[in-house]
Amino acid sequence: MCTTTSFRVIKADILRRISGGEWPPGSLLPNELALAREFGAARATVSRAMRELVDDGIVERKRKAGTRVRPVPLRQVRLDIPLVRVEVEAQGSSYRYALVSSETVPAPNWLRARLDLRQGAEMLHLVCLHLSDGHPYQLEDRWINLGAVPQAEQADFSTLGPSEWLSRQMPFSDIEISFSASAAEAEQARQLSCAVGDPLFRIERQTFWEGRPITFVRMVYRCGHRLIARY
Amino acid sequence: MCTTTSFRVIKADILRRISGGEWPPGSLLPNELALAREFGAARATVSRAMRELVDDGIVERKRKAGTRVRPVPLRQVRLDIPLVRVEVEAQGSSYRYALVSSETVPAPNWLRARLDLRQGAEMLHLVCLHLSDGHPYQLEDRWINLGAVPQAEQADFSTLGPSEWLSRQMPFSDIEISFSASAAEAEQARQLSCAVGDPLFRIERQTFWEGRPITFVRMVYRCGHRLIARY
Repeated sequence: MCTTTSFRVIKADILRRISGGEWPPGSLLPNELALAREFGAARATVSRAMRELVDDGIVERKRKAGTRVRPVPLRQVRLDIPLVRVEVEAQGSSYRYALVSSETVPAPNWLRARLDLRQGAEMLHLVCLHLSDGHPYQLEDRWINLGAVPQAEQADFSTLGPSEWLSRQMPFSDIEISFSASAAEAEQARQLSCAVGDPLFRIERQTFWEGRPITFVRMVYRCGHRLIARY
Repeated sequence: MCTTTSFRVIKADILRRISGGEWPPGSLLPNELALAREFGAARATVSRAMRELVDDGIVERKRKAGTRVRPVPLRQVRLDIPLVRVEVEAQGSSYRYALVSSETVPAPNWLRARLDLRQGAEMLHLVCLHLSDGHPYQLEDRWINLGAVPQAEQADFSTLGPSEWLSRQMPFSDIEISFSASAAEAEQARQLSCAVGDPLFRIERQTFWEGRPITFVRMVYRCGHRLIARY
């Protein structure tokens, strides 16, 4: 059998039928075997199209009940979280980095609660400023769990930022990330050259590896910063 | 041949070797055929594991040069953008919706520029408030292009929000979404029961379908709102 219909063509055709009302929200799709016959395609090709439609939040698979068009589509965006250096350079600007402060301290209570750390856990606390064309761009408030990453104590963060250093040490990990708005506190305003109380876009991220807390970071961006994604 | 090694096992093993330093950042992985032989798995199974590692931003494929461990892993998060009703109900709260205002007006210049609309394009402008347990949760400032979605003019937005109505009309579309922080303006502060100047988390979204502008929406959340994602 010569199979020429690609999964993209099949996916586009299914999307057209859904939007055209042939298969309205909530309706059951024909099974993969029937679709493969109709398209003159291999079942694996239909499967691939279906998998993408599931990933896109357009259809949903229910055990035994088959594949249905979602009553309400699930909107998902994929957000790239680049290193701040890469982000700045991608905008055609020159990147500069400065270490503001560095100290080894026991984890404060709010951080112990967030990362589930034992009392007295030693943390490396770094404050770093990332600049774009010489202007403050992002202020990074970073905590590294020395119990899990002892080599951080010897690392030189005066020239390389902790995000970049960590991404080389552990190329992947479990991340929880949150986005919010906050009012600039006095020290943040001073570092970012803005007014106290100015609205700042804030990203907080906590990272685990094999169940152990690795790091917590709070990043605030200069006023007007937008994080953009396309779906 | 009986293939029992699943792509998950293969993926986990590759991840372990990368993190263990056997395949450091920048190094070349063995080709899929060699890995399939080593794992005693079908090549398609190795392919699937590799595809996920590419999607996860851990390895990258280069034409002819093979598959390499990324020097800097690409961090990506998948962000669910649920309907605000679903978001509120998922928190165990009761959802309420109110239409604040509705009018048909020509597109203002800032919107024409954003959506590439012709002069005088007719827009339905809606302001809606979404409440959680009776408290303001999200203020939605919505513009719908009546040239592309004429049926919106007859729709009843007094009981059903435009996000939910639109997602039923067009289950999918091209979306550009941005996240930022802004200071509450007088009207926003009044609707959200906060102070003028309070930092608000803001989502802006513009939607196209087959190249035509459909809608623009600006959503601001009550103070302290976080958008959370896991990687």
